[in-house]
Amino acid sequence: MNILLSLTALARHRDVLEQALPQGARWLTIDTDGALRVDGTRTTWDPEASPPEVAWQTTDLLHGGPLRPFYRLVQGSCSFRWLQTSSAGFDSPTISNLVRRGVRVTTSHIAGPPIGEFVLRAALDHLQEADSWRRSAARHEWESHDFVEVGSTRWLVIGLGQVGTAIARSARSLGAHVTGVRRSSSATPDVDALITPRQVRDVLPSSDVVVLAVPANAATASLVDENFLRHMKKSSVLINVGRGSLVDEQALLQALDTGRPARAVLDVASSEPLSSTDPLWSHPKVVLTPHNAALGNLRYGRSAAVFASNLESYARQEPLAHEVRFTDLPA
Amino acid sequence: MNILLSLTALARHRDVLEQALPQGARWLTIDTDGALRVDGTRTTWDPEASPPEVAWQTTDLLHGGPLRPFYRLVQGSCSFRWLQTSSAGFDSPTISNLVRRGVRVTTSHIAGPPIGEFVLRAALDHLQEADSWRRSAARHEWESHDFVEVGSTRWLVIGLGQVGTAIARSARSLGAHVTGVRRSSSATPDVDALITPRQVRDVLPSSDVVVLAVPANAATASLVDENFLRHMKKSSVLINVGRGSLVDEQALLQALDTGRPARAVLDVASSEPLSSTDPLWSHPKVVLTPHNAALGNLRYGRSAAVFASNLESYARQEPLAHEVRFTDLPA
Repeated sequence: MNILLSLTALARHRDVLEQALPQGARWLTIDTDGALRVDGTRTTWDPEASPPEVAWQTTDLLHGGPLRPFYRLVQGSCSFRWLQTSSAGFDSPTISNLVRRGVRVTTSHIAGPPIGEFVLRAALDHLQEADSWRRSAARHEWESHDFVEVGSTRWLVIGLGQVGTAIARSARSLGAHVTGVRRSSSATPDVDALITPRQVRDVLPSSDVVVLAVPANAATASLVDENFLRHMKKSSVLINVGRGSLVDEQALLQALDTGRPARAVLDVASSEPLSSTDPLWSHPKVVLTPHNAALGNLRYGRSAAVFASNLESYARQEPLAHEVRFTDLPA
Repeated sequence: MNILLSLTALARHRDVLEQALPQGARWLTIDTDGALRVDGTRTTWDPEASPPEVAWQTTDLLHGGPLRPFYRLVQGSCSFRWLQTSSAGFDSPTISNLVRRGVRVTTSHIAGPPIGEFVLRAALDHLQEADSWRRSAARHEWESHDFVEVGSTRWLVIGLGQVGTAIARSARSLGAHVTGVRRSSSATPDVDALITPRQVRDVLPSSDVVVLAVPANAATASLVDENFLRHMKKSSVLINVGRGSLVDEQALLQALDTGRPARAVLDVASSEPLSSTDPLWSHPKVVLTPHNAALGNLRYGRSAAVFASNLESYARQEPLAHEVRFTDLPA
């Protein structure tokens, strides 16, 4: 069995990976320049004669990394059986095509801790009006103000996967009242109240912090539209750590101009990277970050642990964690 | 018994206060313009003939409020017995003089939650390098970076009173390793390790977040000096939510220039309000806030609950919570 992964990932996690390597399996690595190696040593290699069966897609392959040659090998291999990704989302045509072809795809639900910390910082920054301190300090002015404690706020967390749950927990640990939104009504100890998507508009008017942590699909496209925004509280903040498609950005800008909500923190945009001429950049009530919320320094280790565990399950022909089902695919 | 307090405080907390009012006692209120009233109704009143026995010093008396006439009544009353303050500190000559005169003074240890949230925001802002996102956004540039998760950091919390304990708890809830510093070595479940002030220098080199949460006194003056700073980690942040006198500001500016620590978040300064020409304002590695960390919106209710509880104890001649002892006074 040939296991495709980046040379960077193998070098970083060799200890964990070697322990999980099935008998008779080999690492097929791809370097930043696209060069292939077997077990980390540059050798001649014929992917057509000995193609990959398993692949681990790590984030170092993105952003200038050898993502294309990686997927060329995956797609070109008739004996390819299983792809492990490093994110929770599977809203890409590449993934859909693999699943439709019968390849198993597993996602990683490891972004809870970093996104939880990102949302906590963003919410505290809003509630404490830290921007006002920064502006006063720039003018050398000593101007204090009362700020809102998390313990006096109500949060609405839309989506209670690994990310939404981490957000709910950290808000509640500081005393917030948290309402969670999800389709199934199975009980969870991580929120004070659980509602279905239909009930969101009833809770919006009393929510101080509204967090979007749902996947992008047909049901969630433009979830935050003019109607949604009109139901928000004036002093509230909207925080999007899901996908840009969840928000009608035009409607959001208009709503912010009317003062409802007070602020939007967007880690994602409908088009990424956001064009430098996009009006979101210069709106005074928009705080933009570059799809950065999941990029915590502990994610590499978490990601390797997930792959190593699934690799052991795969070798033993046991069920894999977080396998994408055909019926989950976007239309 | 006459109980002196601001009219603002009585109006805000009438329900809680009325329940705690001892039999035969009356509210003597002071308005923002210094006018006195009995039970909230403007009447003639002779403080010399019927002076206050108890007083509650709330924060609305400060910053342009009638603090001076308040203390004139307190100091002029020979039958004055007990002052409840709204903060944990008692490093003012007014308080020292009252205690020396035999007046009982009780402090309020209610700043843990807001200061805990303030420190959490400040630490997350540093660890996530949020300033870099703000600068990129100002240039309309989509530039992501890996950030440090709290779960990968080590904190050193100097002072484990109500404030230090709240800080330690919130850091640990996100997975940080927290070392607490206090003089007594009695065990506490809120930290991973407990050390004495002598051992601080041994722990500084491995601490990512160093928080000052000790009172100002002879032992803590210039606690953070050249030697302390030289032991800090290069990438670390120093957060001062105690008093300005804890830090040698000249030494701090020099240390920041050498890149050790990476940043200082100062909510307090040696002279407040800080002069607009002070070099702290313009140093790129200093984040200044105007002694604001305790000013959370829930403090009014907490403060009233403390006073009401102590007032009931006072009427029953039971011990008061957080009474300042003569031996605690600064020299």
